Amino acid sequence: MPIIECVPNISEGRRTEVLEACADAIRATGASLLDVKPDASHNRTVYTFAGDTAVVKAAALALFATVVPRIDLRQHTGEHPRMGAVDVVPFIPIEGATMADCVALSADVAEAVNKAHGIPVYLYEEAARVPGRRNLEDIRRGEFEGLAAKMQQPEWAPDFGKGAPHPSAGASVVGARMPLIAYNINLATDRLDVAKKIAAAVRHSSGGLRFVKAMGLALADRGVVQVSMNLTNYEKTPIHRVFEFVKREAERYGVNVLESEIVGLVPAAALTASAAWFLQVDSFTDDLVLETRLRKA
Amino acid sequence: MPIIECVPNISEGRRTEVLEACADAIRATGASLLDVKPDASHNRTVYTFAGDTAVVKAAALALFATVVPRIDLRQHTGEHPRMGAVDVVPFIPIEGATMADCVALSADVAEAVNKAHGIPVYLYEEAARVPGRRNLEDIRRGEFEGLAAKMQQPEWAPDFGKGAPHPSAGASVVGARMPLIAYNINLATDRLDVAKKIAAAVRHSSGGLRFVKAMGLALADRGVVQVSMNLTNYEKTPIHRVFEFVKREAERYGVNVLESEIVGLVPAAALTASAAWFLQVDSFTDDLVLETRLRKA
Repeated sequence: MPIIECVPNISEGRRTEVLEACADAIRATGASLLDVKPDASHNRTVYTFAGDTAVVKAAALALFATVVPRIDLRQHTGEHPRMGAVDVVPFIPIEGATMADCVALSADVAEAVNKAHGIPVYLYEEAARVPGRRNLEDIRRGEFEGLAAKMQQPEWAPDFGKGAPHPSAGASVVGARMPLIAYNINLATDRLDVAKKIAAAVRHSSGGLRFVKAMGLALADRGVVQVSMNLTNYEKTPIHRVFEFVKREAERYGVNVLESEIVGLVPAAALTASAAWFLQVDSFTDDLVLETRLRKA
Repeated sequence: MPIIECVPNISEGRRTEVLEACADAIRATGASLLDVKPDASHNRTVYTFAGDTAVVKAAALALFATVVPRIDLRQHTGEHPRMGAVDVVPFIPIEGATMADCVALSADVAEAVNKAHGIPVYLYEEAARVPGRRNLEDIRRGEFEGLAAKMQQPEWAPDFGKGAPHPSAGASVVGARMPLIAYNINLATDRLDVAKKIAAAVRHSSGGLRFVKAMGLALADRGVVQVSMNLTNYEKTPIHRVFEFVKREAERYGVNVLESEIVGLVPAAALTASAAWFLQVDSFTDDLVLETRLRKA
């Protein structure tokens, strides 16, 4: 059986009863609910669930059906940018499923969501049908409040549905992507300028590594700074290369790496490949890993 | 369902028809046959298979039933020490099974083997009932040729069966142990004395790390030397510590690590823990690994 992961965000991070109703709806479809991460100041929650194609489709639709009557973006405030009550729904191939499977699933779910609730849907990342819609940030720019005006522009007609937002649920973004690794490196210094300089050096947008997004920030309560990153393709830009890059840049400023942290879940293959690199394992393949061989047997 | 691995050695590495009959017998029980490693100069073959308790028991017994009529140690020569046609049968807890489960299974299989074939069986490693039988080397010392005399000594009465070898199949050793990682580090030098000195420094028996066996040898065809190791408990003596230890010792002689190699299979947890160490991941646990969370969900 193929395994696909889905990591949707909803625009609610405070009302426990809403968050629990969503968790129950996901579980009721037979999907494995792996993680729920509410954030009160962002007023936003990330669910992580997995299952085969039919199960993750059912769980995504159950999430929409639960959220639409309960979240009204006209009453919503929070620090994080958002344009939908169910904001972003990415599908991720984990095992025995391809990116093409997830692209097909995205269109399927987008169509069903529009049909059931009248919510307009944009397809993004690998599922994008228009080049300017690969990046979530471009689609979401202007947020819910700017959506009605933005959607009147012909180039922002949605992939499914008509060119106007749903009154309370806005618009949603559905798509397919590689597993994303949220990876932070804490530096043994309180110099925020160093974290910002290193973030600028390592991230793709300002000249760094192809599949890295990064920003420098202060962890004020701990008196240290952090290079906070998203690794969007760990096969092409692996964790160990990012770590060594940041460590070397920090040395330039006389700063040491204090520690790093993985936020959320990481695919085993991302870590085993890093171990093999550090250990200089010749001709490493995932087939040397006992559990991989067992799954294939 | 619990998963137990079994990695038996048989005293045949040349006759393909015997090796295939054994593989067929293992598969016929429903066990997942993960690997078959014949060695012609050792005249010995390692099978790796896995399944739940009942399945690995059936597969181990099927292996004995296949080997006993086909291998006669009175006609056997090879470089590797051996005392049985089926020489050593270790059971290894992988997932949802404890070491205690594997100890119980060892006694179960040992009794059944003795009953079915009259082969005397020793219990070793975690399954040992006598302290002097934890180490395979102590049990096997004297090999098949010295077995009849050795077994007459009261301290070498087998755990199952009478104090005399089976005429053609000798005696077998059955037990339970942690996953063993066969891990070699190749050095960018042809100086065999350096590999031998490092092996002596890193191995437990001569003052090194608790769960490391090591020897230095030359890879004559490549013009380099190797520290060839078995890591017998990767949780307590992890791979990265062994790698850094060997690398530092090599530096002392002005020698670099060329590469390392993993022979056979390695549990994912051994590599993910090493990646977390090199990447300085704070508070790493196996629950951060997506596949682990999926298995538990």
